[in-house]
Amino acid sequence: MDGERRVAAVLPAGGCGERLGGCTPKQYCPVLGRPLISRTLEALERVGWISDVVVVVAAESVDLMKNIVHRYGHKRVTLVEGGVTRHRSIFNGLRAFTEGHSLGPALQKPEVVIIHDAVRPFVDEETLLQVTSAARQYGAAGVVRPLVSTVIAPSPDGCLDHSLERAKHRASEMPQAFLFELIYEAYLQCSHDDLDFGTECLHLALAYGKTRAKLLEGPPDLWKVTYKRDLYAAESIIKDRISKHLCIITNIKEEALQIGFQLHEHLKSHIKHVKAISSSMCRTVQDVKNIFQGRCYNFVCINVKDSDLEESRKLIDLLQATPAGSYYQSVVVSVHLAFPEQCGSEMRKLSEIRELANEAQKSDILLYGLLINYSKEESQHEGGARQASGIIAALITDRNPVLAGQVMVA
Amino acid sequence: MDGERRVAAVLPAGGCGERLGGCTPKQYCPVLGRPLISRTLEALERVGWISDVVVVVAAESVDLMKNIVHRYGHKRVTLVEGGVTRHRSIFNGLRAFTEGHSLGPALQKPEVVIIHDAVRPFVDEETLLQVTSAARQYGAAGVVRPLVSTVIAPSPDGCLDHSLERAKHRASEMPQAFLFELIYEAYLQCSHDDLDFGTECLHLALAYGKTRAKLLEGPPDLWKVTYKRDLYAAESIIKDRISKHLCIITNIKEEALQIGFQLHEHLKSHIKHVKAISSSMCRTVQDVKNIFQGRCYNFVCINVKDSDLEESRKLIDLLQATPAGSYYQSVVVSVHLAFPEQCGSEMRKLSEIRELANEAQKSDILLYGLLINYSKEESQHEGGARQASGIIAALITDRNPVLAGQVMVA
Repeated sequence: MDGERRVAAVLPAGGCGERLGGCTPKQYCPVLGRPLISRTLEALERVGWISDVVVVVAAESVDLMKNIVHRYGHKRVTLVEGGVTRHRSIFNGLRAFTEGHSLGPALQKPEVVIIHDAVRPFVDEETLLQVTSAARQYGAAGVVRPLVSTVIAPSPDGCLDHSLERAKHRASEMPQAFLFELIYEAYLQCSHDDLDFGTECLHLALAYGKTRAKLLEGPPDLWKVTYKRDLYAAESIIKDRISKHLCIITNIKEEALQIGFQLHEHLKSHIKHVKAISSSMCRTVQDVKNIFQGRCYNFVCINVKDSDLEESRKLIDLLQATPAGSYYQSVVVSVHLAFPEQCGSEMRKLSEIRELANEAQKSDILLYGLLINYSKEESQHEGGARQASGIIAALITDRNPVLAGQVMVA
Repeated sequence: MDGERRVAAVLPAGGCGERLGGCTPKQYCPVLGRPLISRTLEALERVGWISDVVVVVAAESVDLMKNIVHRYGHKRVTLVEGGVTRHRSIFNGLRAFTEGHSLGPALQKPEVVIIHDAVRPFVDEETLLQVTSAARQYGAAGVVRPLVSTVIAPSPDGCLDHSLERAKHRASEMPQAFLFELIYEAYLQCSHDDLDFGTECLHLALAYGKTRAKLLEGPPDLWKVTYKRDLYAAESIIKDRISKHLCIITNIKEEALQIGFQLHEHLKSHIKHVKAISSSMCRTVQDVKNIFQGRCYNFVCINVKDSDLEESRKLIDLLQATPAGSYYQSVVVSVHLAFPEQCGSEMRKLSEIRELANEAQKSDILLYGLLINYSKEESQHEGGARQASGIIAALITDRNPVLAGQVMVA
């Protein structure tokens, strides 16, 4: 990247999460098994033109954060110790570009610095680009949202003093972006009172940098995960997003192709992007990487009776061998055709699926079994495939780890 | 109720939900299969001292709302047609106490009127009591919450004009309460501009009633369901709340008692309130009513092999016969002991469970099967019971209708 156009990000993550009512600061709360901050870091990492992400953490959380960075393979991340307030933490983060810090040498100074929150995991590249461009043009820029509630000013005795006109005000959200020199100088000049009681970086740019920040209306998903209900919402949004793609893998046996085709038809009404591929197109780590690249982490694997669990077993071996696999939780639904007269062998398969699921779960792969009753009557097929599709969609959306290894029947 | 101390509520529900990005106004969005507004009405109905609830709905939603009131058996509800803005709708609601309205005669005028939102389903009696008492004392009262984001004022060119000190402001939430005469007079006197562009009832009480409202800090769960993520959060909170109680029903056969005892022990680490009762204590509609009264809608029913599905079938008949049953979704986990040698009969049971589940689902009862592998070895029992408890807890918390009729194996 051209040094003069360099963009970096500072992520204050020193908060103590008292509003959640728990002891774990919210940026470290697991969402679908992964700390929230790791999801925010992933969102920033996806943006190739952000050269460095400085994460400012409380002294007592440095080791925890190092583990997260290591475990989820985060790149371009520098850890810096936080201060006692939000502004002091951001200031520490900015200093990582101008002086050596306790955890390493100074980073290359950027033209623009983005300031974001560790607890806003759903930031998108478009918004980051807009605040960055606006910062280049105006010196400072921030994302705002309409107010959901009217804002009022209480009098000292706890009664209404006055209310503000809702339409004339906005909630200031994140990300914000600044010309580095401008915001750094503002932090150098501002008062202890600002550092201890202030909450708004845009205010510092105005007060000490004489710069009126450009305000951009942002999408609703930028909201700040603050309360327990926000963690619930974040989990549902993530489940939604990672359940939009499904890959059906089938071999070329006639029965497998037929049921694969029917599932493909029915699943389209549950899941946005469904594609079916032959198992010969999913044989190497590179094949799986390509599927992951398309943001697909969900698989239906069709096993015909004489090859048994073979197809599912091969797929899970491959998923386990794919490096990025530890990054995303995968779901595999192992589909089997059940002939009414084969009760005994089906029951044995059941226990095999459970064993394989236990193994897979160690690599954060959820494996579920699905028996589809199979008979020669075409009409019953259709009903089975329709019901099977509903079950597959439910398993993929719910991603319930406790039910991994169970076998559903359609 | 003493007429002079009468309390009523007005629930403006005329909003069009454009912020959700969908066409269904958010108060009518299903949350766990039931419209959000029905959950809000239920919260108000639980409070015995609220005599009337006036729901103000858009003209085009009157029939829809009538259906909801009928379907969920809401009592003390009066429907009134809304106006084009929030203030005009509330005014219409208040008029239901002073004049006959298009949908019926005038209601008895209350001393205090509570104004709440249809999209805040988690209001609790304690908060309603506090705003009502404060309204009696101060004339007007409202619930406030700390600001999550800093509030800023933009200039006409879309740049920052100034930011507000976050600690000196509050978000104005609902419910609010007023002496009826005071707020009614304020609405009679206020300007068209107020009615068309205002958002804050407390402001009208101040401007036209010369009354400074008492502000009370409310709990976080009072937030307003505004975006899609809020619907996700609401669903998770409701799931959380209705999964706190579980009733294990067992007969007095030795095997049933033994597994019942083990499940009871293990389930306590998943679910807050677990009680075990003998099936003889759950034989009448009144028995079920008593269990519902304790806010328990989740059942584990232990079937020993020679009585087969009998216990679960009886329980479902009872649940279907209980009037309040249609109000709450019940979950029944039908537990069966599986002996390894009995594969054939277990498979038959499987299809019976599915049929019974289809029948039960028509009454919004979710039935799941659970086979626990049973052997003479005490140690294996324990493992089975522990795993079974995890599965039971997951089924109850998830309440996934698509998986009803499936049989899990522990």
